[in-house]
Amino acid sequence: MQRTLIAETVNKVGETITIKGWVNTRRDHGKIVFIDLRDRTGVVQVVCTEAAKDLRSEFVVSVTGLVKARPEKLINKNLPTGAIEIEAKEIEVISQSEELPFDMGKEVLDVELPTLLDYRALTLRHPRVQAIFKVQEVVIDAFRQALKARDFMEFQAPCITPAVAEGGAEVFRVQYFEHEAYLSQSPQLYKSLLVGDFERVFSVNKIFRAEPSVTTRHLTEVVSLDAEFGFIESWLDVLEMQEYVVRFIFGQVEKKCAKELELYGATLPKLADKIPHIKLREAQEIIYKRTGRDCRQEKDLSPEDEREICRWSRQERGSDLVFVSHFITKEKPFYICPDPEDPTYVLSVDLIGRGVEWSSGGQRLNDYQQILKNAKEWGVKEEDVELYLQSFRYGVPPLGGFALGAERMTMHILGLKNIREASLFPRDMERIDVRLNR
Amino acid sequence: MQRTLIAETVNKVGETITIKGWVNTRRDHGKIVFIDLRDRTGVVQVVCTEAAKDLRSEFVVSVTGLVKARPEKLINKNLPTGAIEIEAKEIEVISQSEELPFDMGKEVLDVELPTLLDYRALTLRHPRVQAIFKVQEVVIDAFRQALKARDFMEFQAPCITPAVAEGGAEVFRVQYFEHEAYLSQSPQLYKSLLVGDFERVFSVNKIFRAEPSVTTRHLTEVVSLDAEFGFIESWLDVLEMQEYVVRFIFGQVEKKCAKELELYGATLPKLADKIPHIKLREAQEIIYKRTGRDCRQEKDLSPEDEREICRWSRQERGSDLVFVSHFITKEKPFYICPDPEDPTYVLSVDLIGRGVEWSSGGQRLNDYQQILKNAKEWGVKEEDVELYLQSFRYGVPPLGGFALGAERMTMHILGLKNIREASLFPRDMERIDVRLNR
Repeated sequence: MQRTLIAETVNKVGETITIKGWVNTRRDHGKIVFIDLRDRTGVVQVVCTEAAKDLRSEFVVSVTGLVKARPEKLINKNLPTGAIEIEAKEIEVISQSEELPFDMGKEVLDVELPTLLDYRALTLRHPRVQAIFKVQEVVIDAFRQALKARDFMEFQAPCITPAVAEGGAEVFRVQYFEHEAYLSQSPQLYKSLLVGDFERVFSVNKIFRAEPSVTTRHLTEVVSLDAEFGFIESWLDVLEMQEYVVRFIFGQVEKKCAKELELYGATLPKLADKIPHIKLREAQEIIYKRTGRDCRQEKDLSPEDEREICRWSRQERGSDLVFVSHFITKEKPFYICPDPEDPTYVLSVDLIGRGVEWSSGGQRLNDYQQILKNAKEWGVKEEDVELYLQSFRYGVPPLGGFALGAERMTMHILGLKNIREASLFPRDMERIDVRLNR
Repeated sequence: MQRTLIAETVNKVGETITIKGWVNTRRDHGKIVFIDLRDRTGVVQVVCTEAAKDLRSEFVVSVTGLVKARPEKLINKNLPTGAIEIEAKEIEVISQSEELPFDMGKEVLDVELPTLLDYRALTLRHPRVQAIFKVQEVVIDAFRQALKARDFMEFQAPCITPAVAEGGAEVFRVQYFEHEAYLSQSPQLYKSLLVGDFERVFSVNKIFRAEPSVTTRHLTEVVSLDAEFGFIESWLDVLEMQEYVVRFIFGQVEKKCAKELELYGATLPKLADKIPHIKLREAQEIIYKRTGRDCRQEKDLSPEDEREICRWSRQERGSDLVFVSHFITKEKPFYICPDPEDPTYVLSVDLIGRGVEWSSGGQRLNDYQQILKNAKEWGVKEEDVELYLQSFRYGVPPLGGFALGAERMTMHILGLKNIREASLFPRDMERIDVRLNR
């Protein structure tokens, strides 16, 4: 019999159907056994008699049975299929499972992070874990949709790069035949040079950081959502595009992930009609006035500063997110555009909220001579950025762009404690699928 | 004045507008200079007087001028904007270009492949080169759309892997802190294990091959389009899904890339109502009968065999594409499912057409004990495929899937001679952006 998806069972009362999936849980009530069967569309209760004797959690089975409406008082309102149940007539085991190392039937999986990851192939079956990747899929897809609607072309950014353009400490080395190559830390130079070709480009790509630190925020391989575009009138065009994309992503998550947000008790950041933006020095002044803590000479916002400016934004501007711009030129890469009104500060902008950074962007230099001058000043070798320079040698309009991290975005939306939870197969100093030091 | 995109100029006759873009070509006719200006939406003719004196190819300019209908006999029917021209009133140079190393104004760029790639940032500005990546974008997007419509979840496959599961000669090594890691040769094991979690998954991901060969078909980094799904009834479900996806891709390319196909004089493969499928041994028998060449004991089809079976398919079945299945079990990886009717042959299937392979797929093993047994027989270490095995230890339904190469697909659709043309930034033994041996 053709398979019916579990989400569709509610429309089949009185019919005999076949469903297929995994045994989520079993509850024995004497001669009767209740099985919660799970497929990609949901979970449904199956009522079995002796045939269910050998079924254990995670067995893959095919159940043919009658869809029956439950009596009013037995309806489970927490389950989309809670108004019905399947009276099993025939159960076929498709694939067996070994005994589980922990209980997969709980609403919240009760394991520590290392166990969650040691058993990644298994723990990814848990509906609450799966919710994370539903949200992530929507975030990434929304990013693409938003930019396609604005006439951006999607490109595939390379992973293997010939040189380290921006400081070499945290880069992975690849043995490339008789040469040394590197894993990309950012598609920045590629997306910028492509503005000379396609005007508006974006990519969903992997970036790699060999950061020798094991924190809740670091992965060695992450998904970067990158956009770059030309013919901007000012850096504010970049800020506006960034705001548009972030709003679009939130809108899609809200529309498509209500169930997933609920599983985490998560709400999307509240946004004002316009996300406020302030300069670094203004932010520091505000923090000083509010707390008496004098960070006005600092080169950047500390985590505590970021939290404070988020509180200010929430309280004074009614927005959970706030743009902070005009960081110190010398602290930024060679290609960022200094503010002509005061070149000490740069036309770069971070979007921060809930005490953390959500994305960053800015206007880039487009004048070839200025880029050459900066490269020299920053100690960047011309031969290491040759293709990038080539683009600007032949005419590129004023440009800018921004980047968001897919795992970070997912983490912040759902309020996850550790970024590893937001990566299907997280890589860090100590783990690539399995623990490296065993 | 707000920028008007060049494609929109045809609707602005009689209006004064501002367009921005690159000088594509200039033609001097005494006091009058004709500029073809290019932006991301097209090219338009600008008529200038003295103001154009200093303009050279690839200068980025802003032109404010009057849109005028051309006299009937001067209409250029080959250009979408050929019925109008812009009478320049004001020209502002936004960014200058150095003199070009070759003529970018020709309809077909007249440079050899090494030059095409040495000047990649520049040559990607040529409309005929850009067409390749328009087609590629549509191919990739169509792949996603097709599978989303069938309820597949998009996932992000990892690039860094902990071990080499299938033969180590052609793998890139990464220095991973104090460990050795590898660049992924295929997301096969990840997409298969995820079927145990999400049932239906696909990914657009990078794969890496350290093949020490410089041919027209090899790149070291390519974009792989991967799909995998569970609860199949037989391997024919995989074949059908593959056919559906390929048809969908062709449909989208046909719909969205008419102009691009025309630039290459390309036509999409002609398909019968159903793509024919034959087994390897049947294909060899057909070749023997048609040519007298006896390849019936060979383990695979040679390039010449592939061309012959394509000719047969075209002539006898009216289809440019043909599925060939049932290759030799021992020649395939450990996870492929042998045909229960004759385990010498395997339930894998290649889609070939126009003499080349377009995609490949098959049914995989899903029985844990069988997988373990095969891994041992194939010499695959259990610890190297640990996470993969974990999934099957806990119950996975019958599954299968397939993969297409984005560059290869682009190349075959447009009839490109070298796969490097179908990669924005092709990497091979001798080049990562720049030539490695200089």
